[in-house]
Amino acid sequence: MIIIGERINATRFAIKNALEKRDAEAIKKEARAQADAGADYLDVNGGTRPEAELDNMGWLCEVVQAEVSLPLCLDSANPAVIEAGLRLHKNGQPMINSISMESGKHERILPLVKQYGARVVALCMDDGGIPKTAAERVEVVARADIYVDPLVMALSADITAGQVALGTLWGIKARWPEIGATCGLSNISFGLPNRRLLNRTFFAMLMAAGLDSAIIDPLDPQMMAAAKAGPALLGQDEYCMSYLKAYRAKRLEV
Amino acid sequence: MIIIGERINATRFAIKNALEKRDAEAIKKEARAQADAGADYLDVNGGTRPEAELDNMGWLCEVVQAEVSLPLCLDSANPAVIEAGLRLHKNGQPMINSISMESGKHERILPLVKQYGARVVALCMDDGGIPKTAAERVEVVARADIYVDPLVMALSADITAGQVALGTLWGIKARWPEIGATCGLSNISFGLPNRRLLNRTFFAMLMAAGLDSAIIDPLDPQMMAAAKAGPALLGQDEYCMSYLKAYRAKRLEV
Repeated sequence: MIIIGERINATRFAIKNALEKRDAEAIKKEARAQADAGADYLDVNGGTRPEAELDNMGWLCEVVQAEVSLPLCLDSANPAVIEAGLRLHKNGQPMINSISMESGKHERILPLVKQYGARVVALCMDDGGIPKTAAERVEVVARADIYVDPLVMALSADITAGQVALGTLWGIKARWPEIGATCGLSNISFGLPNRRLLNRTFFAMLMAAGLDSAIIDPLDPQMMAAAKAGPALLGQDEYCMSYLKAYRAKRLEV
Repeated sequence: MIIIGERINATRFAIKNALEKRDAEAIKKEARAQADAGADYLDVNGGTRPEAELDNMGWLCEVVQAEVSLPLCLDSANPAVIEAGLRLHKNGQPMINSISMESGKHERILPLVKQYGARVVALCMDDGGIPKTAAERVEVVARADIYVDPLVMALSADITAGQVALGTLWGIKARWPEIGATCGLSNISFGLPNRRLLNRTFFAMLMAAGLDSAIIDPLDPQMMAAAKAGPALLGQDEYCMSYLKAYRAKRLEV
């Protein structure tokens, strides 16, 4: 299970504030805490304002990479911002979050994927927007060197949101067993109480349906414990070695 | 999600002790606590010694039904013990735990199922024992008025135990969507640390695969919270009404 730490994101007030003040210590603290909690990648999103995003991404990459040696998940809808991040990327294989099948976007991103040997998160949407059904979302995906995101919507707006995301994932994995799958799953619980309970229960369901990676808050100990329990339960952790190692490191105490 | 409280079971030392001393108060306390925690059924198992089991079952049924008005899940491998429990059963639809396709057993239980209008838990095993693969287990099941148990084995003995149980459940639900499914899932974590983490993560996976009922400890608040989150996430809880009701009743505080 590849954990992508979600905390360095300009949609969070503390990060927006740190970006505007160029408060490097605040960003480094978030980077260090997520690395210590066991994140494999750190998502970086500098989208405070469109005109500031390019500079923000450059600054975030410099600051984060000065503190931790994790690879980054470059999070932007703007290909120029992605490219700026790729140019500065230093540690391991970069990840691009995200491309969709909307025309005018993937054509600019795919050459960068190739040039920088990046992993890439692909959203199951095209020019028609986000398809409503699992079958339609599966149709949108046709490449095997990418991490597909089945697109998790809010249950509070649509009670079928969980089923559709799970069905999309099952459909993708049934057709292309080798493809990777990731998602930002916390959207599922938007507008409902006790969001962490819903998030970690849904995380387990998604793992059973084939999720390989998740964009989550690594500082949520229950979520990180579930990320260790899941692969053991699914026969992906031989002799439960990784689970037992996490237990001895006291990372399962929730 | 039908929750079957598992605590009144002679394999637990406290229950064995209460049975030997005919300590009705100890049994009533377990019955009341499980009912208060939201159990739908109470499993009763009096198997201290083969020669005592018939008397034990009768006594347990009397004592439990004097305290709570929940239906019982009569838990024995002995058809005579099951029948004794059915004769004493007072509240709602009884459940029989369990029958298998082993010859000599289901022939004696099935007429009782019909006579008492009971629900019945069917184990996916026959005279050949417990089949190793999901496909073989699916083959063993061919009736639709029963709760099928996909048979959860210990991960510590076989790393594929979780996959096989999930695959069995998927196979059953794909072939017979209307059939019920239940299981005693805590066996999955036998011999591993932090069993409750594994149990609740596996519970979420099983719900996503179609589990309708679970034989669990209703006094584990995390497990009961997962039982509310699961149906909401799977689109089975319209407007998340049941989830929100549990939240307001402070049953999601974990």
